Amino acid sequence: MVNSDPPRGGRRPGATATRDAILAAAREAFFARSYEGATIRGIAAAAGVDPALVIHYFANKRGLFVAAMELPVNPGEVVGAAMRAPRAERGFALAKAALAAWESPGASEVIVALMRSAASDEAATAVLRDFFAAEVLAPIANAGGGGPEAMLRASLAVSHLMGVLFARFIVRIGPLADTDTATLAPLLGAALQTYLDGDAPEVQS
Amino acid sequence: MVNSDPPRGGRRPGATATRDAILAAAREAFFARSYEGATIRGIAAAAGVDPALVIHYFANKRGLFVAAMELPVNPGEVVGAAMRAPRAERGFALAKAALAAWESPGASEVIVALMRSAASDEAATAVLRDFFAAEVLAPIANAGGGGPEAMLRASLAVSHLMGVLFARFIVRIGPLADTDTATLAPLLGAALQTYLDGDAPEVQS
Repeated sequence: MVNSDPPRGGRRPGATATRDAILAAAREAFFARSYEGATIRGIAAAAGVDPALVIHYFANKRGLFVAAMELPVNPGEVVGAAMRAPRAERGFALAKAALAAWESPGASEVIVALMRSAASDEAATAVLRDFFAAEVLAPIANAGGGGPEAMLRASLAVSHLMGVLFARFIVRIGPLADTDTATLAPLLGAALQTYLDGDAPEVQS
Repeated sequence: MVNSDPPRGGRRPGATATRDAILAAAREAFFARSYEGATIRGIAAAAGVDPALVIHYFANKRGLFVAAMELPVNPGEVVGAAMRAPRAERGFALAKAALAAWESPGASEVIVALMRSAASDEAATAVLRDFFAAEVLAPIANAGGGGPEAMLRASLAVSHLMGVLFARFIVRIGPLADTDTATLAPLLGAALQTYLDGDAPEVQS
């Protein structure tokens, strides 16, 4: 008999199916009711398991949130790959990679849900902050040589990426919501490059 | 007897006080319960007036929201002034003016409330979208000569401003949340300038 769904990582098939059912219920709950509104008890009930099993797998609501919000593409890998481009091309590489990643099936829904949770709930904000710090901010800052100025420049680059997400997928302002990624990438890339170049003008007052 | 609080615009003092009480109740309701959660009935009750009077002054919840969210500084004026700078200095002028405006007393609270509402509620999103289109996007696009490319560039500049707001005041990522405006302005200005210059690289694939 062909096993078309082999267990991963040594997990028993039953355990994997249960874990997947919990994650599916969690995604539905977080999307529908935000981080604050969703409860482990409600998610467990929707998945048909005991709340203690959810705690066993994911420790707490935060752990469950991080696992459930798993993106279709790994942001750390996307950013890391862009930072391996020649220095003068990193802005464009980052813009192109980010815009392409957001077009992946299911990505924009997850991102919008994440940003909505972050905007409305302090706990979800902390999750997003930690996530961005480790997966997105650090690789960009490290590529810029590390240190406080590289961190500041990286945080401005990340803020721009967040702003494009906010403006393109949530507020859907003007032409930004409807413009294809090939047109956006060089424009966004040139702006990001100013942060990655490290050749900003002196501080003025 | 010295009148220290004269009626404005010919309005009777009683009407002005009532209107101000409604706006104060509305701000409290929108901040506490978001656009969706706040009701005209509840706001009227908190202000001690009949709901019909709220409709009389503000037509509907949207009109009330726009009036209540009135910012301490007028964004249209801030952006318009920055766009009157010499073309090569507009990015810095816009960055400096925006960062300064967000430091005005009460501004960040209003902005965070607005962005939270926009992230969580479609009606509030539409309010914010319309607001940004008229007050922020249009002056930047017009300064760039108008037309589709100027609109796209302006929308990317606005997205960056939104992203700095989101990252600085809501998610509070890394150094961006704690860095003074004098340090941020030239960095942000250089990035914004790439959109205002109109000298982006050709579209690549």
